[in-house]
Amino acid sequence: MTEPFSMRREQARQAMRSAGLDLLLLGPGSGFRYFTGRNAIATERFVALAIARDGHDRIFTPRLQEPLYAGIRCVDTVIWDEADNPLARVAQFAQEAGARTVAVNPEFWSGFLIALKSLLPNIALHSGATIIDGQRRIKGAEEIAALEAAAAHIDAVWARFCEATPTMTGRTELELRADIDRLMRQEGFSEVSWVDVGAGANGASPLHHGSDHVISAGEPVVFDFAGCFNGYYGDICRVAVSGAPTPDFQAIYDVVHEAQEAAFQAVRPGVPAEEIDAVGRRIITEKGFGPYFTHRLGHGIGLAAHEEPYIVAGNSTPLEAGMVFSNEPGIYIPGRWGVRIEDIVVVTAGGARRLTQSPRHLVRLG
Amino acid sequence: MTEPFSMRREQARQAMRSAGLDLLLLGPGSGFRYFTGRNAIATERFVALAIARDGHDRIFTPRLQEPLYAGIRCVDTVIWDEADNPLARVAQFAQEAGARTVAVNPEFWSGFLIALKSLLPNIALHSGATIIDGQRRIKGAEEIAALEAAAAHIDAVWARFCEATPTMTGRTELELRADIDRLMRQEGFSEVSWVDVGAGANGASPLHHGSDHVISAGEPVVFDFAGCFNGYYGDICRVAVSGAPTPDFQAIYDVVHEAQEAAFQAVRPGVPAEEIDAVGRRIITEKGFGPYFTHRLGHGIGLAAHEEPYIVAGNSTPLEAGMVFSNEPGIYIPGRWGVRIEDIVVVTAGGARRLTQSPRHLVRLG
Repeated sequence: MTEPFSMRREQARQAMRSAGLDLLLLGPGSGFRYFTGRNAIATERFVALAIARDGHDRIFTPRLQEPLYAGIRCVDTVIWDEADNPLARVAQFAQEAGARTVAVNPEFWSGFLIALKSLLPNIALHSGATIIDGQRRIKGAEEIAALEAAAAHIDAVWARFCEATPTMTGRTELELRADIDRLMRQEGFSEVSWVDVGAGANGASPLHHGSDHVISAGEPVVFDFAGCFNGYYGDICRVAVSGAPTPDFQAIYDVVHEAQEAAFQAVRPGVPAEEIDAVGRRIITEKGFGPYFTHRLGHGIGLAAHEEPYIVAGNSTPLEAGMVFSNEPGIYIPGRWGVRIEDIVVVTAGGARRLTQSPRHLVRLG
Repeated sequence: MTEPFSMRREQARQAMRSAGLDLLLLGPGSGFRYFTGRNAIATERFVALAIARDGHDRIFTPRLQEPLYAGIRCVDTVIWDEADNPLARVAQFAQEAGARTVAVNPEFWSGFLIALKSLLPNIALHSGATIIDGQRRIKGAEEIAALEAAAAHIDAVWARFCEATPTMTGRTELELRADIDRLMRQEGFSEVSWVDVGAGANGASPLHHGSDHVISAGEPVVFDFAGCFNGYYGDICRVAVSGAPTPDFQAIYDVVHEAQEAAFQAVRPGVPAEEIDAVGRRIITEKGFGPYFTHRLGHGIGLAAHEEPYIVAGNSTPLEAGMVFSNEPGIYIPGRWGVRIEDIVVVTAGGARRLTQSPRHLVRLG
């Protein structure tokens, strides 16, 4: 990937001028990665990128971490020692830049923000989300390629898992989870964000991560796993069964499958994000399962596993080419089972394209 | 462990009254665990415990996560749906409680804080660190027992690693790292926070996590690893060598060893935290290595791997019985090697006790 970071910071600067923001502070998180290409770790030791509306960008770093931020084009580092107050350095920088308004990334620690505000009582604090996400939610060609690679490796993990699992009957959720975790690391994921395996009634809880429950024949199992591949995230959900599914389970599976397909077909530039959610939800509601589809249809994905745009009621943001998000309707019948089918899709000029290629039918493992 | 959570919240309420704080909000993090016994995950979906100075405690949770917070004594849940604005619920609660001052945990996301402030422009925002850490930095008997168990399992990992490693010569840092990671999971750690393995010059960088570098005879290797055991953290650093260490390496090892012992001997109630740092640093400085001891002497440990009290210049907090922290002086000679020896210690009525029991001498592996 070429060096897009200084250009991204320049775009942020332009957006800051339009919004009347003088200083943008980014603590550790996906925004920091977006603007620097480096990873910062959120700890009690303050680290932040400072983008001033007029002037040179700076990274404030503890001395120990200085090498992590060396050599970033057009960014100077300001090093603080263990007994220093790093926020005093930031306050000094803000004053020298004549900043009256400061914006921060959503995950910026409030402890640091409150400390800064006590040093600069007259400064106005703003959310930096619009500046940061406004750019990030439209992916460039290289980012889409990176997300496509992440999706392909997620697909490969799923294919290898299915091939290596002649049957799930008699095995536990945690054993299957360990299999997928190992395959993800083998496929090159630097981070396994989650591997949730829920059989039968456990699949009806989107909170269930896995247990010693032994899977029996005919019991549907929901698999949801995500991870970071070369800096970008992949995420999938599929359902498998060993033996024959019951007809009533197959029936709700087919409803989710139909809803997921309809939502995908509705994706194209100009459609509000919430409309995609509504399309999927309408089908599930018409079949009588509306109360059992308890979450939004999807979330954006990129340098974070969850980011803008959220595909949820109330988000009227029009879709644009280059947006990438999950399409994951579900039905959860408490005490019985759950279904969720999740793909990653990218908005194209004429519609949408799936990055996830795994088949979407109910998988039979034995 | 008995149910200490409602008592802790009551103590917080008393501290809030003394400090003139009306409402304490705790987002996901170790403070949330301290006051609820439950784990909350930091995502874009808002979750927080609200402790009002007068009144009933509440947890604001997305509907999907409601089961995670069910059944906490004396805490009601306020559930929000995907299209709701959870901060509006918090603002309503704050208004009904007549809150004029709100404090938050250090890691509370600024995006949420700024959204709340826009709904309640007249509210004053404060750091909740004093309220939260003031209690947490003194561990009760059950917490000390939990930290002792974590330390014992860290010791067991180290002992098993040493036993299973007849020599490090010819192996890579990443291989040794994988060995320790596996042993930690086998010992029952629910989270492996880090496993840093640095041989030779790599050991001179506290940032180095591990690489394909092949270890040669006589090359010292720094091991630092930490993890969560039954909710509490363990953390250790030891140095090993295969073959004979060079005399100049053994000499700096002995300096760090002496500094670590002197710092430990200095620990007793009433001594300022910074004085323990100074005691260790003085010995290293007297031997001419002061500039190569580039970090604080230690950090508190408990429900978080790093927490109050920090053993660092500028922290004049007097030590009290029940405080638990790391004692980890180091010397890092760029381009050559590094040494760090880390134990976890608890302040007792008469002095201090080591929770870490692993021998502190330079370990010979073959």
